[in-house]
Amino acid sequence: MTAPGKGARAGRTTLAVACVLTLATSSQGLLTTASKVDGRYLYNFGVVVLLAETLKLAISVYLLQKSRAQDPEGTVMTKEVRTAVLFVVPSVIYVLHNNIQFLFLKYVDPATYQILGNLKIVTTGLLFRVFLKRRLSKLKWIALVMLLVGATTSQIGGCDGHALSAPVAGYFFGILSAFMSAFAAVYSEYIMKRNNDSLYWQNAQLYFFGVIFNFLSLTVQDIRNGFHHGFWLFTMFHNFTGMTWLVVANLAGTGLLVSWVMKYADSIVKVYATSMAMLVTMVLSIYLFNLVATLQLFLGILGASISLILYYMRPEDLSVAEGPEPLGLPTTAPRKTST
Amino acid sequence: MTAPGKGARAGRTTLAVACVLTLATSSQGLLTTASKVDGRYLYNFGVVVLLAETLKLAISVYLLQKSRAQDPEGTVMTKEVRTAVLFVVPSVIYVLHNNIQFLFLKYVDPATYQILGNLKIVTTGLLFRVFLKRRLSKLKWIALVMLLVGATTSQIGGCDGHALSAPVAGYFFGILSAFMSAFAAVYSEYIMKRNNDSLYWQNAQLYFFGVIFNFLSLTVQDIRNGFHHGFWLFTMFHNFTGMTWLVVANLAGTGLLVSWVMKYADSIVKVYATSMAMLVTMVLSIYLFNLVATLQLFLGILGASISLILYYMRPEDLSVAEGPEPLGLPTTAPRKTST
Repeated sequence: MTAPGKGARAGRTTLAVACVLTLATSSQGLLTTASKVDGRYLYNFGVVVLLAETLKLAISVYLLQKSRAQDPEGTVMTKEVRTAVLFVVPSVIYVLHNNIQFLFLKYVDPATYQILGNLKIVTTGLLFRVFLKRRLSKLKWIALVMLLVGATTSQIGGCDGHALSAPVAGYFFGILSAFMSAFAAVYSEYIMKRNNDSLYWQNAQLYFFGVIFNFLSLTVQDIRNGFHHGFWLFTMFHNFTGMTWLVVANLAGTGLLVSWVMKYADSIVKVYATSMAMLVTMVLSIYLFNLVATLQLFLGILGASISLILYYMRPEDLSVAEGPEPLGLPTTAPRKTST
Repeated sequence: MTAPGKGARAGRTTLAVACVLTLATSSQGLLTTASKVDGRYLYNFGVVVLLAETLKLAISVYLLQKSRAQDPEGTVMTKEVRTAVLFVVPSVIYVLHNNIQFLFLKYVDPATYQILGNLKIVTTGLLFRVFLKRRLSKLKWIALVMLLVGATTSQIGGCDGHALSAPVAGYFFGILSAFMSAFAAVYSEYIMKRNNDSLYWQNAQLYFFGVIFNFLSLTVQDIRNGFHHGFWLFTMFHNFTGMTWLVVANLAGTGLLVSWVMKYADSIVKVYATSMAMLVTMVLSIYLFNLVATLQLFLGILGASISLILYYMRPEDLSVAEGPEPLGLPTTAPRKTST
């Protein structure tokens, strides 16, 4: 992957990467669904994540070496503990977030879980403003709320008229989870952009800690279970199929694309890519799993598309067509009359 | 009612009238529902419409006389057959539209009828452009589509996953009906604005023909039925209650407000008022008829509100907050690297 240039070219590169990320995220959903048997993973999903982290680390180190060979001076690498430590945080957030989502799911049903998950769209905007000090225009805020409305509309269930009737704790963990998710995105953007370091070098550090944390997490799980299923390392490829390896490859690819987006675009691009991916997945599911297209999906896609247009519209585009007043139609009252 | 002045004051007057129209339209739905017994009208609804037309005619003639007494020169009244004939058309459209809606309902269920009815939002925009030659900005078009999405979202039914599965004829009459409805609005705007005539004088002509058409329509109905129920004139107040008279008063008031809007504002203001009224009615119904608030209603209201903001926002408001880039975060790639 190449860093984009300036102006229009950068815009086109970002758009292309965002589209690929959307498709990759969408296939992630489809692949994981397809890799399940009777709705369950037969393989160890933690191992899949570990393998993906390892693959990302390997690719980043390879690209870093190539970059150093070709352009030794251009490949900036800050080597200091103070900076490296920053790359530990995403792994910590990942573990924390997983635990919060687990608690969250204890209080709400999967439909409500999915619907409240959309709150990350607005929390990302908020933290983007608060932590990265980036001001969004009124129109961009409206667009984000619109994306939230569109994404949620597409998920309105069939017969459960009492959607969103969760206990207070459910809402609490839902909102907490949305803020964690937003914080993870905004923090990544911060560490990727805070200096001129090579993306590959930043990735190498990020995934290095990712591998360690996932290795530890799998081991801790086994210890907690009293090695009931044995040690994960000895059974790690148990029930792996070609589909499982596709999930690994997809997870790794998506992760690398997100890193690129955080460095050269921003968290909002990621929010759009993942929300659009959700809609693409729903449309593809209709064809793949023979589902019925619902009106709410159609309306959700319309809403999300409008949001995308509003967010990335140039201000000039908004008023150009406001033409001259037509002939013969006075716009203000022709005369003042009184009752 | 007084004609608005120019600029901000006119804007405020229009907003106030639009709000009153919204509330009046909303109570119209609630009053007619409340006036039914076991879901049926016990009284003759045609008589209610005739009485409302008569009331509007009486009020308009009264206000016209008062206006002429106070400001004889300011009360412009074009008296020519060529102009008066134009006021016959709305009555003709009304009869035609009623018949089309009757056919439309033969092919689709009430839920689909209601949902397809929202198409008038976009058809009004189209005819507004085509017949009144008024250009809408891209943002205003987006806002109208957004209003369509919001209104439709609020109406998504519970368990019928197969919404909008109507025969082709159903869609045909739905679209035809939406165009008729839009044409009626745009045509009214045209005749009200084409000259400087006093609103009261225009109303007097409009409702004069309204009274005649409704009188004839009731009589024709009786003839068709072979006077099975007797002649309507002798039983016109049959089963009238206080609630029925409220419906008459409300229908008359709403009609007068719409005339004002067509003369001093435009068809789009009417579209917003009626769409918002639908949402207000749904919210009030929850309290009045003990219904459950649905997520789709909430999302629909959010969508429609966003639409309203987008449509009536000044372009300056949209980009002001686009602040300076923050410290420490380069927006373009710090250096070009290559793979």
